[in-house]
Formats: sequence, structure tokens, C-alpha cells
Amino acid sequence: MDKKEHKITPYEVSGEVDYSKLIKEFGVSKIDEKLISRIKKNAGEIHFMLRRGVFFAHRDMNWLLDEYEKGNKFFLYTGRGPSGKIQLGHLQTWVFVKWLQDKFDCDLWFQFTDDEKFLFKDKSYEEIQKWTYDNMLDVIALGFNPKKTHFIIDTKHAGLLYPEAIKFAKKINFSTIKAAFGFTDSNNIGSIFYTAMQAVPAILPSVLKGKNIPCLIPLAIDQDPHFRVARDVYPKLGFYKPSIIHGMFLPPLTGTEGKMSSSEETSAIFTTDSPKEVETKIKKYAFSGGKDTLEEHRKLGGNPDIDVSYQYLKMFFEPDDKKLQKIHDDYKSGKMLTSELKAILIEKINAFLKEHQKQRKLAEKNIDKFILKNPTK
Amino acid sequence: MDKKEHKITPYEVSGEVDYSKLIKEFGVSKIDEKLISRIKKNAGEIHFMLRRGVFFAHRDMNWLLDEYEKGNKFFLYTGRGPSGKIQLGHLQTWVFVKWLQDKFDCDLWFQFTDDEKFLFKDKSYEEIQKWTYDNMLDVIALGFNPKKTHFIIDTKHAGLLYPEAIKFAKKINFSTIKAAFGFTDSNNIGSIFYTAMQAVPAILPSVLKGKNIPCLIPLAIDQDPHFRVARDVYPKLGFYKPSIIHGMFLPPLTGTEGKMSSSEETSAIFTTDSPKEVETKIKKYAFSGGKDTLEEHRKLGGNPDIDVSYQYLKMFFEPDDKKLQKIHDDYKSGKMLTSELKAILIEKINAFLKEHQKQRKLAEKNIDKFILKNPTK
Repeated sequence: MDKKEHKITPYEVSGEVDYSKLIKEFGVSKIDEKLISRIKKNAGEIHFMLRRGVFFAHRDMNWLLDEYEKGNKFFLYTGRGPSGKIQLGHLQTWVFVKWLQDKFDCDLWFQFTDDEKFLFKDKSYEEIQKWTYDNMLDVIALGFNPKKTHFIIDTKHAGLLYPEAIKFAKKINFSTIKAAFGFTDSNNIGSIFYTAMQAVPAILPSVLKGKNIPCLIPLAIDQDPHFRVARDVYPKLGFYKPSIIHGMFLPPLTGTEGKMSSSEETSAIFTTDSPKEVETKIKKYAFSGGKDTLEEHRKLGGNPDIDVSYQYLKMFFEPDDKKLQKIHDDYKSGKMLTSELKAILIEKINAFLKEHQKQRKLAEKNIDKFILKNPTK
Repeated sequence: MDKKEHKITPYEVSGEVDYSKLIKEFGVSKIDEKLISRIKKNAGEIHFMLRRGVFFAHRDMNWLLDEYEKGNKFFLYTGRGPSGKIQLGHLQTWVFVKWLQDKFDCDLWFQFTDDEKFLFKDKSYEEIQKWTYDNMLDVIALGFNPKKTHFIIDTKHAGLLYPEAIKFAKKINFSTIKAAFGFTDSNNIGSIFYTAMQAVPAILPSVLKGKNIPCLIPLAIDQDPHFRVARDVYPKLGFYKPSIIHGMFLPPLTGTEGKMSSSEETSAIFTTDSPKEVETKIKKYAFSGGKDTLEEHRKLGGNPDIDVSYQYLKMFFEPDDKKLQKIHDDYKSGKMLTSELKAILIEKINAFLKEHQKQRKLAEKNIDKFILKNPTK
């Protein structure tokens, strides 16, 4: 199989992602053992997604921890572009965000970029609003603290966001946007402006409280260009540059190229999938690192590095290092068959989704607790 | 004097304006006698600015009057980019707007485009806010009906405007904007998006009331490109195209090229100028169509067509056709000297500004009556 050169922007993730290359391309820093120790010291423990390099790169994390250790607490900012169902790839990032919220006792500002999705997708305004509501349920279902979690919906909070966004926009020209996002003159003018709206939540708590508060943005690395563009602007407006921690993509079911995508049914497991659907999808589509025949597999073993089921366990569903190592070794030696590996994953996902779906239902009653109140004046 | 080819966009007005050529370039229609009669029939009288061709072109005025005659009333929408002091050129347009409001018993939506001026000018956000406040006083001073006049300030009403603006923005690409406004890739991304914000007030009453209401936009013709770009979008979003009525520019003191501009002290008379300042400016800077010597002037007469003082009387300060004709004839014959013509104008302007300044002071207490209340939710 030829490797397809990767292309990573907020608007396209394709090819086989080369994360080492991305670190250089994007000018971010690898998360090293020293930084992991430092996070562990402050958090009291370390999340397996950090230990296993699922969150693998960062910007200015050491500065953020300097401030934290001085007693200057940060807040978290992440988001979601609501254009379809939530799938496991989204949840994976947010599970880590929740860990950060719990361990560092942080406020979380969660942006729903309904304007972005309306501007970039061939979907109606009304449909995007429907997805915004739907997607909020999934975020709430993960158990974020409603007292410390603030949903910003771009169109509903435009009164707060737009006056700040134009301050960023004034300092970013179209040439920069073209280079960062691969845009052309055919882009609509809303899509060109949009990145300025994404820059704002990283300063919004500072604006509202009238003091400069450090910000940490956990995100999948395809979102980094937004902040690469805006980072230089923050200090010009009198704010700290936000720190960023970058996650890998949960691969699509069908293989290791690109990322799990909501727009393709066969590439993703959705939070609303039934146990049967999960089972069918994993059995039918999850790309296997196993051999073609039972004999061959027993003799030569499977390849966990390209096996999607194993990757899901490693990146999301098996937090226990020892259990994971055993699965790895058994699969590699040929002792464990692909069907057995898949059975483990199916059980894990379905257990997770059973609880998630229960919480998701309960979330319907709690949405108002999470949506930021617009100031009245 | 060589004629300099005119250039007319919302961001540049230069050269000697050729209005006949503009009508073709912009694809607008000349206001003819038939339309003037029709306006007169509905208004009960005709404003001298229409009779004298100061408002000279339009889009879809006949459709608007069809609707009006069927009992389907329109609202008015105009605006101001608050980046400096208000001068006579602005007032001239708004005096006509007030006439329309009074005669057609219309609501007026008045947009203060503070975002635009912040994005396009090398001025701080705070300075633009100061001008927004200042400029509102001048609008109020003209006597608009506070019950029927609604100020929209883009940054303060972004919560209402932005969600609608992105619907326009989605249907306008950068190529179109480049052609209409002469922008380049060096334009900041806020300036590129901005025109979508200017499109919205023409539908905002329809959005808020949940029914389609016809809109008439009186404006100086340099603002037409905004609506040329947006016009095709209105019906796609389910709204009427706004009708437009276009005014000429009040010429700068120094001559007939370009327009009176707030950024040049010697080109403009401001609403806050003292009687002495007005006198000095007219005497010193108002370009004269008179002859170089008294003898020559008495013998050959002056040229009212290029005389700025005469133009101000015609376009703004002498509503009485007979009086204007006499001034015209006396000046042209040489009976009236430039100093006499200027004396008439100085008296007229100072009488106008005396009342305006009084009302402007009173307006400070009434601003809140005009600013649209943001809906609370």
C-alpha cells in the first residue's frame, strides 16, 4: 500500500498521518518524559492518553505549568463543530478534557461553532441548530461539572464574541488565511472571517472578568492552524497566548488513514449506535492486522500497530497498561485471534455506550445549566 | 484643469464624479419625471432634493411604490460609519431621510457601523466607540421620531446581526468582494466579511416581526456596491430585495472633485463648528466660480455650476426655487459678487447649525430612546 501524503487542516484530514512530520510542519513541541512528569506532579496522576502519546504535542505547556505552580490557575477551552452525530473520536478528546477539568479543578469553556459548520457545509441553518442541540447532549453526558462548564454557541453568543473577533480579524489578512487553511478566492466571506470567532473563547473569561487568565486548549491537531494564525495576535491585544495540547486522531474503522469522520457511516461508531450496530461495524469494517487464515495467524501472529481494534483499545478503551500489554503480546504472537480481539473491543465500547446513552437521555433536562447566560444590557 | 477619472467605492471616492457614467457603471436607474410625480402623489409634496436631482438614481422604487399603494408600507434603512465628526454632507442625506420618514410615516432603522470603521481605519476600538456616541447626537438632533427610529450599533447588536450576516456571507465569495470593493489578499479578514453585516438591517425588521416588509435605503451612491453585492442574496433567503434611492455627494469646500470628507479639516464644515469657523471656512476655502477681478466679474459674470457656495445652496440650504433661481441668475450675470453669495450661504449654514447645536445638546439625554433594545433570552 502506497502511503498517501497527509494533508491536515481544520477542513481536510487525508492521507496517512505522519505525526513526527506534523510536529515540524506545525512548529509544535513533542510532549516528552519531563513534561509528563511535571503534569503528573501537579495532577496527582497521569492519564493513559498522555502516557501512551495519544496527546503527543503541545505549545507553551511549560509556561502554563509555571503559572499554575505559582497559583495562577488556567481555564480549559475546547469545542465542537456541530454538523452531524458525535462519534468515538470526539468523545476520546473530551474524556481527556474532563480528566484535565477534574485534576486541575478548571473551568471549561466549550464552544459550539454552529456558524462555522453552516458556512462550510452544504447544510441549512436549521439543520445545524438541530445538531448543536444533539451534540450538547453528548458533551453533558460525559459528566462535566455544570458549575464549571460554560457552553458558548457562536450564533447565540455572537453579541459577546463578534466585538472581540473583529479585534483579531483586524490583524489577520487573507494571505495568511489562504496559507494556513488552503483557501481560495472562491471561499465565501464568512468562512474567511470565521477563524476570528474561534480565537475569542481563549480570551473571553479574561474579558468578562477583567483580568488576564491563562488558557489551555486541548484539541485534535487538525484544529491547530486556527490558533497558529491567532497566536501572535493575543499578546497584541494584551492577552496571554493560549497553551495548546494536541491529540492524535482516532483512526477510522476502515484503516489508519485520515480520521474517524461523522460524514461516513462505515468509518465511525456513533454515540447513539445500538450494541448490535457496534458489533456489526467492528466485525465488518474494523481494519484488521491479522493474517488471512487461521493457520497463518497462529504461526506468524497479527500486527497490532495497524489493527484498528487494538488502536481503539490503546487510545481509548483499555486504560490498564498491563491488560493492554497482554492483548498486544497475545495478538502479536498469534495466540489471540482477530475475532477475539474484536470481541474485547465490542464489549468495552458497548459498556461505555450503555452508560453514555443513559446519561445522554438525562442530559436533555440539564442543557440550560450549561449554556452561558448572555449578559443583558 | 484635467478631469481625473472618478473612482467610487464605499472606501474611496476620488476624481470628478460623473453621475451619468455612474448610473451605467452601477446599473442603477435615473430618477425621471414620472417617478418624481409618483413620489409626489404619495408624499403630498416633493422634496427639493428630488426636484433638483440631488437624489438622482434608484433601484426598484416603482416596485416599492406599487407595494405602498397597495397598503404594504416600507421601512427606511440608512447608516453611518462613525470614525469622525459629522459634517454637512452627512446631514444633507439625513435631512432627506427625515422627510421620507415624515411623509411616508415610516420606521427608520439607523445602523452605526462601528465594526466597519474599526476594521478599515487606523483607529482604536475605544476611539470608534467615542465617535459612535458623538455621531448619534447629530442624528437625533435632526428630529427623527424616537418611537419610529431604531439605532443599531453593530458591536452592541451583534447578537442580532451576526446570525443573519452569515446567511449572506455564505452566498458571497471573495472574488465578488474583490471586484466590488477593489480589495486584495492584504485586506484583513474582518473587512472582507463586513459587507454581510451591512446587508442585515434591510431584513432585520422582517426577521423580528416574522413577516416580509419592504425596505427603502436612502444613501450616498458610494455605498451602493454593498447592496449590489447583497441584492441577489435577499430573495435566496426569502426576503424582498431592498429598494434604494441614491444621492449625490455634497462637494468638498475646495472644489467639485470627490466628496466632503471628515478626515480633511479644510474640505468640510462640521456640525460643531462655531459661526466664526463656518465664516472663515467658507470665505477662505469655498471654491468660487467668480472671476478674478471685480471688473471682470461684473462684465462676464460667475459660473454657479462650479461654485461650491452656490452648490451648497442648491443641494441643501435654499429650498425655495425662486430664491435660488434669482441667486443663480444674479451670480451668472455678474450682478452678485462671490463675497455676497458666500455671505448668503454663511448666514444659512449658521442659522441651521445654531438650531442643530441646540438640539444636539438636548440629544444627550435622549440617546437611550433611540438605541434598539437587545432581546433578552
